[in-house]
Amino acid sequence: MPKRRYVILAEGAFANEQASKTARGVLRYSEDDVVAVVDSTLAGRDVADIAASIGRSAPIVARVSDTLALRPTSLLVGIAPVGGTLPAAFRSQVLAAIEAGLEIVNGLHDLLRDDEEFVACAARSGSRLWDVREPTGPLRVFTGEAYDVPQVVVLAVGSDCSVGKMSTMLELQAAARGGLLEAAFVATGQTGIMIAGSGIAVDRVIADYLCGAAEQLVLDIAPSVDVTLVEGQGGIFHPAYAPVTLGLLYGTAPDALILCHRAGQREIAEFGSPIPPLRALIAAHEALLAPIKSARCVAVALNTSHLGIGDARRAIDEIAAETGLPADDVVRFGGDRLWNAVAAAAAATPKGAKRKKIAALTV
Amino acid sequence: MPKRRYVILAEGAFANEQASKTARGVLRYSEDDVVAVVDSTLAGRDVADIAASIGRSAPIVARVSDTLALRPTSLLVGIAPVGGTLPAAFRSQVLAAIEAGLEIVNGLHDLLRDDEEFVACAARSGSRLWDVREPTGPLRVFTGEAYDVPQVVVLAVGSDCSVGKMSTMLELQAAARGGLLEAAFVATGQTGIMIAGSGIAVDRVIADYLCGAAEQLVLDIAPSVDVTLVEGQGGIFHPAYAPVTLGLLYGTAPDALILCHRAGQREIAEFGSPIPPLRALIAAHEALLAPIKSARCVAVALNTSHLGIGDARRAIDEIAAETGLPADDVVRFGGDRLWNAVAAAAAATPKGAKRKKIAALTV
Repeated sequence: MPKRRYVILAEGAFANEQASKTARGVLRYSEDDVVAVVDSTLAGRDVADIAASIGRSAPIVARVSDTLALRPTSLLVGIAPVGGTLPAAFRSQVLAAIEAGLEIVNGLHDLLRDDEEFVACAARSGSRLWDVREPTGPLRVFTGEAYDVPQVVVLAVGSDCSVGKMSTMLELQAAARGGLLEAAFVATGQTGIMIAGSGIAVDRVIADYLCGAAEQLVLDIAPSVDVTLVEGQGGIFHPAYAPVTLGLLYGTAPDALILCHRAGQREIAEFGSPIPPLRALIAAHEALLAPIKSARCVAVALNTSHLGIGDARRAIDEIAAETGLPADDVVRFGGDRLWNAVAAAAAATPKGAKRKKIAALTV
Repeated sequence: MPKRRYVILAEGAFANEQASKTARGVLRYSEDDVVAVVDSTLAGRDVADIAASIGRSAPIVARVSDTLALRPTSLLVGIAPVGGTLPAAFRSQVLAAIEAGLEIVNGLHDLLRDDEEFVACAARSGSRLWDVREPTGPLRVFTGEAYDVPQVVVLAVGSDCSVGKMSTMLELQAAARGGLLEAAFVATGQTGIMIAGSGIAVDRVIADYLCGAAEQLVLDIAPSVDVTLVEGQGGIFHPAYAPVTLGLLYGTAPDALILCHRAGQREIAEFGSPIPPLRALIAAHEALLAPIKSARCVAVALNTSHLGIGDARRAIDEIAAETGLPADDVVRFGGDRLWNAVAAAAAATPKGAKRKKIAALTV
């Protein structure tokens, strides 16, 4: 499929790292082009001025109509609000994009196809409406087939939402490139799907089928690679979203876990409930998983984006000492160190079909 | 609302306790009338012959058409198969009931309203189609309001599916009748909803809204009673359904737990994965809940339906000794012992508005 040329809609939100995490994730990791970001409060600036870590440049403009000369193919709704509803301020811009014939790529729980005005307008203009979060394929209950997948499955878990589970797995995929083991990123959330082009937004799946959806992702991808890197969701102690975390933990039947954490964070952001000490948090995941599938946490991915470079390196060393595990900020310093930990775990995992190839790595 | 007069459809399934658990639950606990059960493999028998523990009599017949002289108002689909699809053998009987103008009460994931033939037939006959599992009301994310409910909330958890979580809470509600504390059963599954007349089938809720749905049930019911008895679902170590369990554990923010278990069971029935020893299982629930809401397991409800009376009493004593908690088979021996444990826990729970009334119990 040809590259998309995205306009990313992040009205009033692009300066806020959390509110614009979909926009920033696509800017950083997508192989598609981004011709502009729409946020009238930052019009005239460049995304690189607002967030240098994104690693690419794109103009910020006030309206979708300002971008049409840049020949966009698609408008991406670049926010992830709690509850998943489309803010009123976004509506006119989405309509303008539909009228201009752009594809609309939407990751909110609110589906474009349930909106009569959007659907009618798209019918006139020929726009495609892609609701990324809408599950595709049949609903299925977990069967246990994932237990028998001979390839190695790695799942990201986290101390909270928005600490870097998707970014970690994308950085590990990048670190694996050109090496002995072939690795594939598996998207489980809307931004990951926008970046990877496929996946299932597991938080959108009916609860009874959640583990089955997670299992299906593994069955679809694992056989074609050596290591499957599954994006995590939520957090096992998150009062609102923990069921999604547990669905991935059981449904993907992983061989290894990577814990993602923001350095210094002690509480779940939205609720103020405590995050256990990391060793206890790791032990809780391993204990929950133990009756289902034996797996260990093999590394800690630390998000230090709020720290200076010296503090970041100290925080990484402290976490490594505290947990006894390899630790790094993979977004800041690259994924090599943690990928090596994953590859070592893969080599030590007694699996079937691919075992010889992986075992060769240890010689 | 006037009492329903049910025909319960359990074709080929009524002799199997697991396959017919919806039928048996409604027969045992519903205040509605049951005029007949349809199962051609047992036609001519009575439900009391097949399962004396149900505690009521009703003829078993071969076809829905055999029941019309008994003036039924409603056909209840009385099975709960894995995956939730309507067996082919049921289809002609459901159509016969719709043609006869009966209301259809269906708890399967497969919705009647998605079936064009059923919908068209019901439009002609005037039948009401009630899909019990379809969530009513708006989807909402967990907010934490449940933390502030001043009344006592008790949640049933279990070592597996189908061990008696619903029956336990219904028996406790019955035991509370006429006492100092007013208790209400809250249904979270299809059979419970059929019995209570309201509730939310939480396993049908989109995963992101699961905790919010559980919270809503508590917010709707708890203020009008002293003790809210929430039906549990699944099991925290169940490979397919654990996310639903965790959604109830976090979303209802309970003050006390009751563990439900089948005496002697060591493995999750469908998957063969191990059930931890009960003390470890209780500790796992309490530890998972600890960062969200402090609560203890206060009793064990033991299902001994497969044991003779002497073995049952010995099993109960053993579990009480093993866990250090009150234990009983509430279906077999009544809910008084465990209700007393719940009432004592309620009295010891430092809550707001209703605290004086509850505290008076301990004087």
